[in-house]
Amino acid sequence: MDKINLKKHISGQFNVELEGVLNQVLVMGGLVEQQLSDAITAIHEQDMDMARQIVANDHKVNALEVQIDEECTRIIAKRQPAASDLRLVLAIIKTITDLERIGDVAKRIGMMLLDNANKKQPPLVSMENMGRRTVKMLHEALDAFARMDVEAAIEVHKEDDKVDREYESIIRELMTFMMEDPRTIPQVLNVLWCARSLERVGDRVQHLCEYIIYFVKGKDVRHTSDEDIHNMLGR
Amino acid sequence: MDKINLKKHISGQFNVELEGVLNQVLVMGGLVEQQLSDAITAIHEQDMDMARQIVANDHKVNALEVQIDEECTRIIAKRQPAASDLRLVLAIIKTITDLERIGDVAKRIGMMLLDNANKKQPPLVSMENMGRRTVKMLHEALDAFARMDVEAAIEVHKEDDKVDREYESIIRELMTFMMEDPRTIPQVLNVLWCARSLERVGDRVQHLCEYIIYFVKGKDVRHTSDEDIHNMLGR
Repeated sequence: MDKINLKKHISGQFNVELEGVLNQVLVMGGLVEQQLSDAITAIHEQDMDMARQIVANDHKVNALEVQIDEECTRIIAKRQPAASDLRLVLAIIKTITDLERIGDVAKRIGMMLLDNANKKQPPLVSMENMGRRTVKMLHEALDAFARMDVEAAIEVHKEDDKVDREYESIIRELMTFMMEDPRTIPQVLNVLWCARSLERVGDRVQHLCEYIIYFVKGKDVRHTSDEDIHNMLGR
Repeated sequence: MDKINLKKHISGQFNVELEGVLNQVLVMGGLVEQQLSDAITAIHEQDMDMARQIVANDHKVNALEVQIDEECTRIIAKRQPAASDLRLVLAIIKTITDLERIGDVAKRIGMMLLDNANKKQPPLVSMENMGRRTVKMLHEALDAFARMDVEAAIEVHKEDDKVDREYESIIRELMTFMMEDPRTIPQVLNVLWCARSLERVGDRVQHLCEYIIYFVKGKDVRHTSDEDIHNMLGR
């Protein structure tokens, strides 16, 4: 069993403080997931009110990052955790950095939409599918985080291959658009940036999964292929 | 005076272990700087041997990241540092994450060059200038890190505006190329990705500067404008 009863684990050694931090991470994760999901809806529906809302909300994500980071530092200094407790706090510190940068992607998409609100809209190709897949990955990674479920983290990690393939196909499609009608280039480039950013969100969700594995297994699996992660964990 | 004599600071409270880690960070930083600089040379001179070397070297960057990260965790667990000592170790952990991802940019540029080695080469515009500026920023940020020099970190932080402006101008130029001759689109897109990646390196170097300020001042200045950083630090 790779699942850990996190609450039980903590109450024995840490205290309500750390539970509070874990809840805050999930609040932050939920907010970032919403921002990302809204960004994809805003692209798809060219919804400028939603775009404005995303940009306006970004400061909440940033504030949560700073707040959780400070709380983690305080906990380390005060509680002097060792071994797996320390790994958990360090995993949280890394997790919120990636969450914050996923939040930045949503904000940048919102800003891009606002900048181009009055211009001719580009062909929308199949961004929606890829976008929804990254949101789903993020959702499942946060779920895996809440349960510190290594099996689930490995599954989510593997999902990124699909995002990469969808991304490649979107790029090919957009290139064809541009070559057929060069006047669309400036607009299509904006869509390209969005696609690229979403592809990078998949990479960041992989990081989140790696932090879960790091915490539970004590193994640093960054820079390790999916297959090797599987083998390393003896599956 | 915002300068801190780091060696003196450490020897009193930590020990040779942490000095060792700091040296490793500078080794890692030097390696990443070299990789980035080589990547820019490789683009400019279409040097495929150099591109291959960059890709081959990336594992050294990754290994250093994992090694330093583990050493930092060990130091926290063993030494239970508080206050500014803890901030230093946490700043190091964050610094190496950004360094590793700057290393990834160099690797991706190397791989892109190798993938396109036999294709018609795209117009090279002024990537060299922007690229060299990011290398310079990284070099100066590492210098500021070695001396924990907040003034220098703030100066480097401001430099990113120039990178952003150069980036905008490169993008405009590349768009014109594509619109004038749509057959160049696939090649030009590769140059666009490089430019975008280098622009993001500037952002990452800003993070490095923020970690220096965080360590020395105990203030989290992420999500703070250059002007506000200035004001906040009472300058």
